Amino acid sequence: MERAVVLLSGGLDSATCLAMACQEYEIYALTFDYGSKHSREIESAKSMARHFGVKKHNILKIDFGVIGGSSLIDKEVPDKTVTNTGDVDGGVPPSYVPARNMTFLSLGVALAEAIGASRVYIGANAIDYSGYPDCRPEFIAAFQEVVNKGTKTGIEGQPVKIVAPLLNMSKSDIVIKGRELGVPFKNTWTCYIGGDKACGKCEACVLRLKGFKEAGFDDPLEYD
Amino acid sequence: MERAVVLLSGGLDSATCLAMACQEYEIYALTFDYGSKHSREIESAKSMARHFGVKKHNILKIDFGVIGGSSLIDKEVPDKTVTNTGDVDGGVPPSYVPARNMTFLSLGVALAEAIGASRVYIGANAIDYSGYPDCRPEFIAAFQEVVNKGTKTGIEGQPVKIVAPLLNMSKSDIVIKGRELGVPFKNTWTCYIGGDKACGKCEACVLRLKGFKEAGFDDPLEYD
Repeated sequence: MERAVVLLSGGLDSATCLAMACQEYEIYALTFDYGSKHSREIESAKSMARHFGVKKHNILKIDFGVIGGSSLIDKEVPDKTVTNTGDVDGGVPPSYVPARNMTFLSLGVALAEAIGASRVYIGANAIDYSGYPDCRPEFIAAFQEVVNKGTKTGIEGQPVKIVAPLLNMSKSDIVIKGRELGVPFKNTWTCYIGGDKACGKCEACVLRLKGFKEAGFDDPLEYD
Repeated sequence: MERAVVLLSGGLDSATCLAMACQEYEIYALTFDYGSKHSREIESAKSMARHFGVKKHNILKIDFGVIGGSSLIDKEVPDKTVTNTGDVDGGVPPSYVPARNMTFLSLGVALAEAIGASRVYIGANAIDYSGYPDCRPEFIAAFQEVVNKGTKTGIEGQPVKIVAPLLNMSKSDIVIKGRELGVPFKNTWTCYIGGDKACGKCEACVLRLKGFKEAGFDDPLEYD
């Protein structure tokens, strides 16, 4: 069975992404402990990795606190105003973590090359998302080119492939797909605050709740 | 004075790169403690940062040991056979660290965005080099495109610029430039082995010694 690396945060998207990948590949999950306020998502990542029986779950510590520059790390997480349609506002929000996905994908590619995996899965989504530039198709395509040009497998003609299966799915599509594949939603974690219960107000909670609502299912997570 | 991030390993190239950058910018140096065998280069990086009076020197720990896949981390460092011309062999050598420079550049861009620096300097060199795919102009250009497409500054039209001033210089050119700018070569560290003295045999030592020889200067470093 071919190997794949899955970037696993422990949220709804990455858990669904894992569920999709593990149908075809032997999975090496990679979770980053990057000093965010919602690091309790790491426990969710562990739970997902166990549930889907991954071959190995690597947890890699990177001290983004040294860098800062995001409400997820060193600034206050704002509530998100929901508009009538349930969409979030435009622009790059304060929760943007500078260069996060390129850092995570780079380390995913590093692991893939080290263990001979042919692809790296990332649960990036550019439909019901927060407006992060590094969740868009243009970014994923540009990053693939970096892998083609800047890695051993790339210049040898077999570049590690970046796979983002949720890129063009709505949040409700993701909920439906995750449900179909048996993702234990109750054990995922999405909220940016990282309290005992999900806040229901931050942009991540707002998007998640919108997805469940539109899909017609109850979110089993407890909210404040 | 505008700010720039300089990726500083503590070797000859990054020290020269720092010397060039600090003539024009206020410098935020960024050094990675990534679990390599030659982590003594970090002391050299600190020494260079002090010498050139950088504004701040960030040392960021990333556990590449979790990933492995390189002779610099978890395999044996081979001696490098020097050919008649002093060139090293072709192909990607065992000392290649998977996706290292894209990881380092990503974190450099992260820091640049967080502190409002306009550029990230990297001492990559594609002339007298070890055949690493992530030291070539094609890689640097592809990475710039990732920054343009996948960062806040990028989509706002002022992307952090990746600057690789040594890219097309020979190692002797670098020695000459470093000397001109007062790089204290004695306190740089290049050897991959990381012993008390430089080994003089690994590919990094071989390239360094070739550079000094061709430049017509003595390397003040002690060799075994």
